[in-house]
Amino acid sequence: MTEHFIDRLLAAIEAKHAPVCVGIDPVAERLPEEFATRANSVRAAADRVEAFGRSVIDSVAPLVPAVKINSAFFEAFYEFGVAAFYRLIEHAHERGLLVIADVKRGDIGSTARLYAQGHLAPPAFADVAPQRIPDAVTLAGYLGAGAVRPFIEIARATGRGLFVLVRPSDPGADRTHEFGEPRRFYQHMADLVREWGAGDGLIGARGFSCVGAVVAPKDAHSTRALRDLAPQTFLLVPGFGAQGADAEACRACFRADGVGAIVNASRSVIYAFERADLSQRCGADWRACVAHAARELAAEMADVLA
Amino acid sequence: MTEHFIDRLLAAIEAKHAPVCVGIDPVAERLPEEFATRANSVRAAADRVEAFGRSVIDSVAPLVPAVKINSAFFEAFYEFGVAAFYRLIEHAHERGLLVIADVKRGDIGSTARLYAQGHLAPPAFADVAPQRIPDAVTLAGYLGAGAVRPFIEIARATGRGLFVLVRPSDPGADRTHEFGEPRRFYQHMADLVREWGAGDGLIGARGFSCVGAVVAPKDAHSTRALRDLAPQTFLLVPGFGAQGADAEACRACFRADGVGAIVNASRSVIYAFERADLSQRCGADWRACVAHAARELAAEMADVLA
Repeated sequence: MTEHFIDRLLAAIEAKHAPVCVGIDPVAERLPEEFATRANSVRAAADRVEAFGRSVIDSVAPLVPAVKINSAFFEAFYEFGVAAFYRLIEHAHERGLLVIADVKRGDIGSTARLYAQGHLAPPAFADVAPQRIPDAVTLAGYLGAGAVRPFIEIARATGRGLFVLVRPSDPGADRTHEFGEPRRFYQHMADLVREWGAGDGLIGARGFSCVGAVVAPKDAHSTRALRDLAPQTFLLVPGFGAQGADAEACRACFRADGVGAIVNASRSVIYAFERADLSQRCGADWRACVAHAARELAAEMADVLA
Repeated sequence: MTEHFIDRLLAAIEAKHAPVCVGIDPVAERLPEEFATRANSVRAAADRVEAFGRSVIDSVAPLVPAVKINSAFFEAFYEFGVAAFYRLIEHAHERGLLVIADVKRGDIGSTARLYAQGHLAPPAFADVAPQRIPDAVTLAGYLGAGAVRPFIEIARATGRGLFVLVRPSDPGADRTHEFGEPRRFYQHMADLVREWGAGDGLIGARGFSCVGAVVAPKDAHSTRALRDLAPQTFLLVPGFGAQGADAEACRACFRADGVGAIVNASRSVIYAFERADLSQRCGADWRACVAHAARELAAEMADVLA
């Protein structure tokens, strides 16, 4: 069978000394000048975010093990953006990266089966390239086991993975995730994810389940408690950079042995050319700024974990 | 400004004496024979679910006010399915139907803004037909106010609507939605939806907010309590037919005055030709079976509400 997703991810993290991934979330308003267009056509708009995404992937591919491509930023361009989304997954694979498709789908079992077909299953069609299928997806598990089970079956059979939302980075999500007394809703979700990930054939050679969790760093105490609660759960950590968390805050998402998580940064890397210090350093070469920010991110995380 | 979504929906419900909508959830394995294909191409597969969806829409258009088109069943065919999804929305609009896009998206605010662009906002591009944009969407509000706010702003400005998941139909969802003691997580979600829907300019002439909720009928007592808790919240009611609820169970989702909800049936209508009693009655005419089931659904709900 194909190698376990977390084993593949850990090997890539270690090869690049970078427990981080870069989030591809391009918005038209912030693209470098070379992607400017005056055409008010949806195809032209989708093309330019794709071209930008492609360049970002090329710039960070030697530096990080994985990219996380956020579906929303492509769905804004309807089927044209969705086509670009899949082409970017293929492109990242060609560059040797692992790909997490940030789709956050979540629906009842009979519907989740179809979402899993579109977003994690090997293609059932002769004319669809297998490379367009990501290595892992993000999911919402709020609709219960049925929402994630079809994805787990595929992950088990194909060496892929999933990350279920447990503690989102947006402070507005506290209103739902801190619900409950004394046990909080996010702790309940963490329990469910641990349970879903404990099934036969789901744990890899390195001791982690292919069912991971999305856990943003909040206060170190509660983050560490969450980390300790589920030692086999690999964490995808949002919130770095533009969303306010630093490397030190992210440290609590890793186990004491320095593994167990991957930190994502999106805006702070892909728009690094907006930073005065970097644009001064790299001049008009926006790709150099992006690469610099990715290298910096990897070094910062490696440092606090050392 | 454009007329309020719930006012439009209520007018259509009353014109057709049908507080119901039909869910378009086509799976390849259950299509009528005329849509069979031996081509193993994704385009051919997407084409046939689209053709089936189109025929279902034609068959039910005179009978119901709205269709709910489930994105998952089209995303299974990647961008080709997504294109078909949008074409079906356009087609339903041409047939005079209101369209609820069942997308259940839910992400933090900065991402939700992009989902709202793709799924509820009038197109920002000259080459995209406004008719492909649905009248309302289903959403996951578990990530808090930020996840729904961009949709609410668009709904307010354009006479559109949204339905936030509060009590899903899948029994597996009870594990998360019944969390908490004595107050349950689904009651908390209902409170949030009521609060989000109470803002300036969100209440229509008939007293309902454009921020509705997805509420499946469970036991009559708790359903009625939920209904009474939020008299201004219009409910989209899943779970009818294939999922087990009957008209009587759905009754509790309506207010005492007989309004306040719309009941969705998907499989029990679109696959009605599989029913022995109907296929005997309608012969090989599968469209007649579908129309019959839609008429039956509407009559049953109208009856229990009379």
